[in-house]
Amino acid sequence: MNFTINERIINEGALFLREKEAYSGVHKVADKVMKDIELVFGILPTWAEELDQLASCAVIYGTIDRSPVLTSLSEQGLIDLEEIRGKNEVYLFQIIDAPGTEAGKALVIAGSDKRGTIYGLFRLSEMLGVSPYVDWSGVKPRRQEEFVLDDGYKVVSKEPSVRYRGFFINDEWPAFGTWCHQHFGGFNAQAYDHMFELLLRLKGNYLWPAMWSARFHDDGPGLANSELADEYGVVMGASHHEPCLRHGDEYKYLRGKDSIYGDAWNFRTNEEGITRFWADGLKRSGKFENVITVGMRGEADTAIMGKGATFADNINLLRDVLRTQNRLIKEHVNPELDQVPRMLALYKEVEPFFYGDENTPGLIGSADLDDVILMLCDDNFGNLRTLPTEEMRAHKGGYGMYYHFDYHGGPISYEWVNSAYLPKVWEQMSTAYDFGVRDLWIVNVGDICTQEFPLAYFLDLAYDFDRWGTNAINKTDEYTRLWIEQQFGSVCEAQDRAKIHHLIDGYTKLAHNRKPEAMNADVYHPVHYREADNLLAEIENLMDEANELYAKMDDEAKFGFFSLVYYPAMGNLNLNKMQLLTGKNHYAAKLNRMEANQLAEQIRACMLRDRELVDEYHAIDNGRWYGMGLSEHIGFTKWNEDECRYPVLMHVMPARKARLSVSIDGTEQRSEGSAWHVHTLYMKDFRQPDITEASFTLHSLSDLDAPYEISCEAPWLTCSGYEGMLDGTHKAVDKITVRIDRSQMNHDTEATIVVKIPTGQCTIIVDAKQPETSGLPDKTYVDTHGYVSIEAEHYYAKAAEFQVIEGYGRTLSALKAFPTTRYFTAGEDAPYLEYQFVVHEAGAYEVELYMQPSNPVTTDNTLYYGVQVNDGLIDVVNAVSKGLKVGESSSREWAAGVLDNIRRQSSEAVCRNGLNKVRIYAVSPGFVLEKLVIYPIGKNPPESYLGPPETYYIGKI
Amino acid sequence: MNFTINERIINEGALFLREKEAYSGVHKVADKVMKDIELVFGILPTWAEELDQLASCAVIYGTIDRSPVLTSLSEQGLIDLEEIRGKNEVYLFQIIDAPGTEAGKALVIAGSDKRGTIYGLFRLSEMLGVSPYVDWSGVKPRRQEEFVLDDGYKVVSKEPSVRYRGFFINDEWPAFGTWCHQHFGGFNAQAYDHMFELLLRLKGNYLWPAMWSARFHDDGPGLANSELADEYGVVMGASHHEPCLRHGDEYKYLRGKDSIYGDAWNFRTNEEGITRFWADGLKRSGKFENVITVGMRGEADTAIMGKGATFADNINLLRDVLRTQNRLIKEHVNPELDQVPRMLALYKEVEPFFYGDENTPGLIGSADLDDVILMLCDDNFGNLRTLPTEEMRAHKGGYGMYYHFDYHGGPISYEWVNSAYLPKVWEQMSTAYDFGVRDLWIVNVGDICTQEFPLAYFLDLAYDFDRWGTNAINKTDEYTRLWIEQQFGSVCEAQDRAKIHHLIDGYTKLAHNRKPEAMNADVYHPVHYREADNLLAEIENLMDEANELYAKMDDEAKFGFFSLVYYPAMGNLNLNKMQLLTGKNHYAAKLNRMEANQLAEQIRACMLRDRELVDEYHAIDNGRWYGMGLSEHIGFTKWNEDECRYPVLMHVMPARKARLSVSIDGTEQRSEGSAWHVHTLYMKDFRQPDITEASFTLHSLSDLDAPYEISCEAPWLTCSGYEGMLDGTHKAVDKITVRIDRSQMNHDTEATIVVKIPTGQCTIIVDAKQPETSGLPDKTYVDTHGYVSIEAEHYYAKAAEFQVIEGYGRTLSALKAFPTTRYFTAGEDAPYLEYQFVVHEAGAYEVELYMQPSNPVTTDNTLYYGVQVNDGLIDVVNAVSKGLKVGESSSREWAAGVLDNIRRQSSEAVCRNGLNKVRIYAVSPGFVLEKLVIYPIGKNPPESYLGPPETYYIGKI
Repeated sequence: MNFTINERIINEGALFLREKEAYSGVHKVADKVMKDIELVFGILPTWAEELDQLASCAVIYGTIDRSPVLTSLSEQGLIDLEEIRGKNEVYLFQIIDAPGTEAGKALVIAGSDKRGTIYGLFRLSEMLGVSPYVDWSGVKPRRQEEFVLDDGYKVVSKEPSVRYRGFFINDEWPAFGTWCHQHFGGFNAQAYDHMFELLLRLKGNYLWPAMWSARFHDDGPGLANSELADEYGVVMGASHHEPCLRHGDEYKYLRGKDSIYGDAWNFRTNEEGITRFWADGLKRSGKFENVITVGMRGEADTAIMGKGATFADNINLLRDVLRTQNRLIKEHVNPELDQVPRMLALYKEVEPFFYGDENTPGLIGSADLDDVILMLCDDNFGNLRTLPTEEMRAHKGGYGMYYHFDYHGGPISYEWVNSAYLPKVWEQMSTAYDFGVRDLWIVNVGDICTQEFPLAYFLDLAYDFDRWGTNAINKTDEYTRLWIEQQFGSVCEAQDRAKIHHLIDGYTKLAHNRKPEAMNADVYHPVHYREADNLLAEIENLMDEANELYAKMDDEAKFGFFSLVYYPAMGNLNLNKMQLLTGKNHYAAKLNRMEANQLAEQIRACMLRDRELVDEYHAIDNGRWYGMGLSEHIGFTKWNEDECRYPVLMHVMPARKARLSVSIDGTEQRSEGSAWHVHTLYMKDFRQPDITEASFTLHSLSDLDAPYEISCEAPWLTCSGYEGMLDGTHKAVDKITVRIDRSQMNHDTEATIVVKIPTGQCTIIVDAKQPETSGLPDKTYVDTHGYVSIEAEHYYAKAAEFQVIEGYGRTLSALKAFPTTRYFTAGEDAPYLEYQFVVHEAGAYEVELYMQPSNPVTTDNTLYYGVQVNDGLIDVVNAVSKGLKVGESSSREWAAGVLDNIRRQSSEAVCRNGLNKVRIYAVSPGFVLEKLVIYPIGKNPPESYLGPPETYYIGKI
Repeated sequence: MNFTINERIINEGALFLREKEAYSGVHKVADKVMKDIELVFGILPTWAEELDQLASCAVIYGTIDRSPVLTSLSEQGLIDLEEIRGKNEVYLFQIIDAPGTEAGKALVIAGSDKRGTIYGLFRLSEMLGVSPYVDWSGVKPRRQEEFVLDDGYKVVSKEPSVRYRGFFINDEWPAFGTWCHQHFGGFNAQAYDHMFELLLRLKGNYLWPAMWSARFHDDGPGLANSELADEYGVVMGASHHEPCLRHGDEYKYLRGKDSIYGDAWNFRTNEEGITRFWADGLKRSGKFENVITVGMRGEADTAIMGKGATFADNINLLRDVLRTQNRLIKEHVNPELDQVPRMLALYKEVEPFFYGDENTPGLIGSADLDDVILMLCDDNFGNLRTLPTEEMRAHKGGYGMYYHFDYHGGPISYEWVNSAYLPKVWEQMSTAYDFGVRDLWIVNVGDICTQEFPLAYFLDLAYDFDRWGTNAINKTDEYTRLWIEQQFGSVCEAQDRAKIHHLIDGYTKLAHNRKPEAMNADVYHPVHYREADNLLAEIENLMDEANELYAKMDDEAKFGFFSLVYYPAMGNLNLNKMQLLTGKNHYAAKLNRMEANQLAEQIRACMLRDRELVDEYHAIDNGRWYGMGLSEHIGFTKWNEDECRYPVLMHVMPARKARLSVSIDGTEQRSEGSAWHVHTLYMKDFRQPDITEASFTLHSLSDLDAPYEISCEAPWLTCSGYEGMLDGTHKAVDKITVRIDRSQMNHDTEATIVVKIPTGQCTIIVDAKQPETSGLPDKTYVDTHGYVSIEAEHYYAKAAEFQVIEGYGRTLSALKAFPTTRYFTAGEDAPYLEYQFVVHEAGAYEVELYMQPSNPVTTDNTLYYGVQVNDGLIDVVNAVSKGLKVGESSSREWAAGVLDNIRRQSSEAVCRNGLNKVRIYAVSPGFVLEKLVIYPIGKNPPESYLGPPETYYIGKI
């Protein structure tokens, strides 16, 4: 018999061996695993302290040096503890013949340390098909008859790639805070138990607790939070501005005129009080496992010194602070300072204090920072800031990264719902790792809820970088597939799981294009390139899919699906839909189109849907998530939610005559048929050889019966209708699709469609002239509309390590050079992408690049790339301005980049009439190319958010 | 017995003597006068051909040389025909003892010519209290018992001031055209009978008929129109681009491949055809009384030659054209060319052809133009263009003026409803007269309807310039009073007539500020200075007055009142109201104020009211005006009505939390009480010593109950309320009035009002610091708000002939220098206005002048005035740019001037801390000053349409 868990075995005797020598936290985790087994097999297993009380198959778990049984098994040669000894967070997971029973088998889970054992235990749950969200989200595993592991099954886990891996609960009001108080009565141990479990099941080990209105070390009640964390092996940290195991709120709570800590968060004027405050924090909490924040910022995450202070004043202050803190840590925590995990955050203004300037040496290289983890950070919007140079990477303490899935600040906060996109997380965090950021990864997850999916990815990436990191390019898709299988494998067929996959991809990509809080009616263009309509169709499709999936789920599975997928997806989609409709509504209303009134009703319906979604979120599973939907999320115009603005619904009043307008879809051209105004329109879609369908639309401007008639004599064009009537109320819009049959054209290149409407008539000139393509090689773009728009992926040739990152960027994909840490010289070792294109007029052109809004990895504000047209000189350009101020909302350049999630920059180039080529060279790290648009200077293609859709290239059809 | 008309007299015998020798048109007019008498006395008088059939009091009318009776009376010495002989359009109106009866009296009406007799006959109607609109608008006279003229009553009328005085029926579709066809079956003699009568009763003599879709000389049917005009003595003209008695539509009708007139409106390629076309027109219509248009333009009022033609080509063409036309006129009309009234319009591009340039002499002074009336014109928006220089005034043919009460063209047409403002008509047309424009005045009245009032003024001004012209400054008010008495004296008490006066003043002033077609939601500022609210209150007041008056009118009087006053007034007022509400609606909606939804309903109501007004207009008096309301009039965005846009109604969706905002009325300051955003507001109204009341407003942003509480500790401030609750649906707005009692202030200058609202609280700092005024003379403006705003009328001192034109301009009045034709030298003979003001900081200031958008009177684009601050140099500035293109919509400067009806221009000046003075000197003709605003450079007062309201000056309270 192989090692088996089933009803019979569980009934036979104790399934788990529980040694009193083991860590209590490990036992607690074993209890959780036993409950997982109950969910799978329907019976809660029991445990015993003695070997002879075990069932014929049993689980023996323990930690090196805390398990006489494991020691004995090792001594018997049944396992080899040396394989894990001394390693960090590693476990041995092995099937052995169990000693002391006849034909019994045992699963040995032996940890190199406490967390190793815990991860090993949860491995069993995972193998049983139990989701890491079993407790957190109530995701139920599939009921099974039997679980079998073959003889000889043995795994020794790898050491985690990143030492400290965790998340930060932040901006906790109104959502998380309400939820916590409603369900647990506060930010207490009862609440944290769930978060610790989530963290550990996701293979994290490190946590920053909620801190704006909470004092983790006091709220347990008392030390219960700290003690519980320590029991579980959860390493506690505190945010970057909370040194010496003291939370921000603690000083607010303890300060005062007669306080022993004084009444000023000022190390210069209140050194004694502040020092005592820190000392007492270290005394209280230093006995637990922590990463101690060092350094100092102002209260509530503000600059530390006033405007009067010089740069040097600030740096000197920090030196004094660090010296004091190190002394206190030695005194109250551990005289061996290098044994104490410490962290200094190089966040906001601390970053320049670290680097210093020409006149003032910074903290960099200071002995006070030996062994201190230097924590870098992104720009709060998922784009890394400076990274360690090769020289800096030697720093003994190593580096950390503070990343954001949630942010409260300028230019606009985002905290309502997941808007993280895995390819971006991969691209950024794998770059961080490549640059040597490997000691601490923390991600701000706000209220946690709806961030579960990217959080899992973030922690898995940190846990097993070999599997998911730099070398695993384009594996986010596989990760998503596996994650979906893990959560919904038991309740969904593969086909439905593929739909979930499509849904998650769809909504996170949408959120990557524009975070929901930053979405408004003016983002996407209401008509150019049919941008809004195309996106709306995509959204409708995703929403239908989501609803269909949700309707199918049985009651038990519904809740997990709702909170992990449906709610964040629908929230994002519905909000985007609402704002897109609003853009259309505003556009239509300004033209007096009756459609505006119908669109207004649709917007209202979206608002209602938004509220229903929150209400349902608050209600499901007996109110499990009550509170979690409370964040405002519509119409941010400032960094915080106060004074947010809802979409303005524009209504029109009907014209007093029967009036129609004719417009060419995808353009702003329109006519009301008056002889005095525009009455000739141009439909140029068919100039592009891959386009076989175009359309124009009739809009009613009145509520009177308004007939129209369409005629077209060209045999190669057909319209989807030739007459009709709009009444503005029941029918306000008619879209006429025009199809081309190029085989019928003979030598025609142009035709006219005449549309008769009550106030006159308008003539649509259909220009279907085809470009000359003979002799042109594949992947040659040919100008058909006055510009060429190129997806970076469709290069004609490339050199060296430019790689496609699938799905990354606004439209198709993105290209990035590898290795990510390298600087190249354009024209020498630099990888390049080469594009071919034909234009019809020689002259000066703009070559406009669409790039990720990456920040420079060094402090000198350079992010170079090269552009070369034909055999001209290589133009090496800086993608950012020298004055770029990363992270400062007042910097338009940076703020636009993170709101739009794009950086557009043009180079001027002279093109010849006919075939041209352009090469784009990678130079600095961080260059990520999505798209190129080439057009004559001053003749920009019509504006839009995503940019002009890809134009025609040879081989496209 | 005196000369009496009463029932007895009328029954006694024939009241009118009708001689067969008299003009038939004079008899027709006498018939109309007899019908007038029937309206007054209830019995239709009779006429006789013999003296002995007359009643004891009788009317003997006739024209010199066409009346044996008059000749005989003159021979008898009973009248003296020499008093009128040889004069133009003069009549003798005299009571005599009637010969051939015993004690009989006769009223002799003897005309120097046909029109003289007609005006004399209508004088009788007028004296009987018959309105000139008796036929046109159905205004009924008061019934009388008796009309008596004393023995010895005798009037010899003056010759009219202007030779040809008339109006132009233009842009006749859809309104006038529909009306004409509906009521008369076309633009025929039946229709023109009414217009001729209107013209003659208003003392005009000249008409341009409708011509866009009509051929006056053919439509009679046949020559009936022309013959009727000739019979009545109505001199026919044609618009400026219709030479040789041919209407524009005629060529369209007659041209063709086989036409004897050829098929091209081109004097170069089709000289023969065009010449024949003109010759035939002159042959056909030259026998009637006409002013023959000469010259040539392109078809339908376009430029005559293509873009390829040079300036000289155009001038040479016109020379050839004029030569040909003169030859044809001699041949077909009268060999004595100087006996034939002819007119050349210096309109649009013909103006430069007339003046020529440095290289090419223009038509000016050409012998071909001897005796031709040179017709100048306004800029289509009521502002004169160039005027004859002193030298040019010697031109023998004299000058004419083409003025507009209606215009169809750029930047925006106006043709729906009267928007003429008498002070402007006075100011402009009296200037024209002063400049020697005295031979022809024609005004474009579009559909005629609703223009009756200003048309009467225009024709009266032309008829009797001595009474109403330059020397009669500020008599438009008296004119209005008399006009109202004439129309409504019989049905309204003086008190109600005063209300009508107020109503007419009010709506025409509003239209003068902005023509209704040019009105939109963005004209007046929705909050600054409470501009929109103040105007709305004024409009409501006028509308109430109008409704009250209308309700009072008895059924017979109603119709005349409706068409002459109520409809144009309400149309204007309601449209303005709608657009003002729309401005407020848009402002509110963008701030998510629930008030927006209520405003949207009010806008809808205005739109409904607009339609009701048109429907009522079309229905009253058995459909008398059906068709006349058909012009579009809302939301013009282009020069014509097609594609007009109605107000966009903005709706908001309620916030999901109870949210209020607090705003300081008159400013854009607002707060929602959040600690993170604005929570301090400033109320500075009380800094101005004449202000005793200010206000702030609470707006609901949600539909949830939202309470507020107000507290203020200052004993010198009271709020109109201290607590309340808004629910966003029934109650969305609360306005809190704050009153100051300065006697309680002691040495206080500032107080705070705290407003608690659901999302926080906001503090209003009330700044009531009073300016230092001691020792300052009256009329000294004192800066209290960072600027001073001065009504031009409130000057401190003036020199020479600057005179106040009451009511003229946007706010109070305007000032203009006299004589209007003079050029002055600033600092020497120039009149000036001097203003005193105090500012609190020395430095560079803007002195911004608000002026009428007058055009330069000469072709050199100069309109100078002088500005002198303190004892500095006089800055002589040109109010227009050298590139100004009068009349071209593409000229932003000109277009903005006529849309806004204001010209704003700033001079920079250095002011000292304390008392300053500024002098404004008149230099060129056309300078009309309304307002001055003085502020530090770069610190412009908040934008608004009317400009900042007048600020405080010593003596204001």
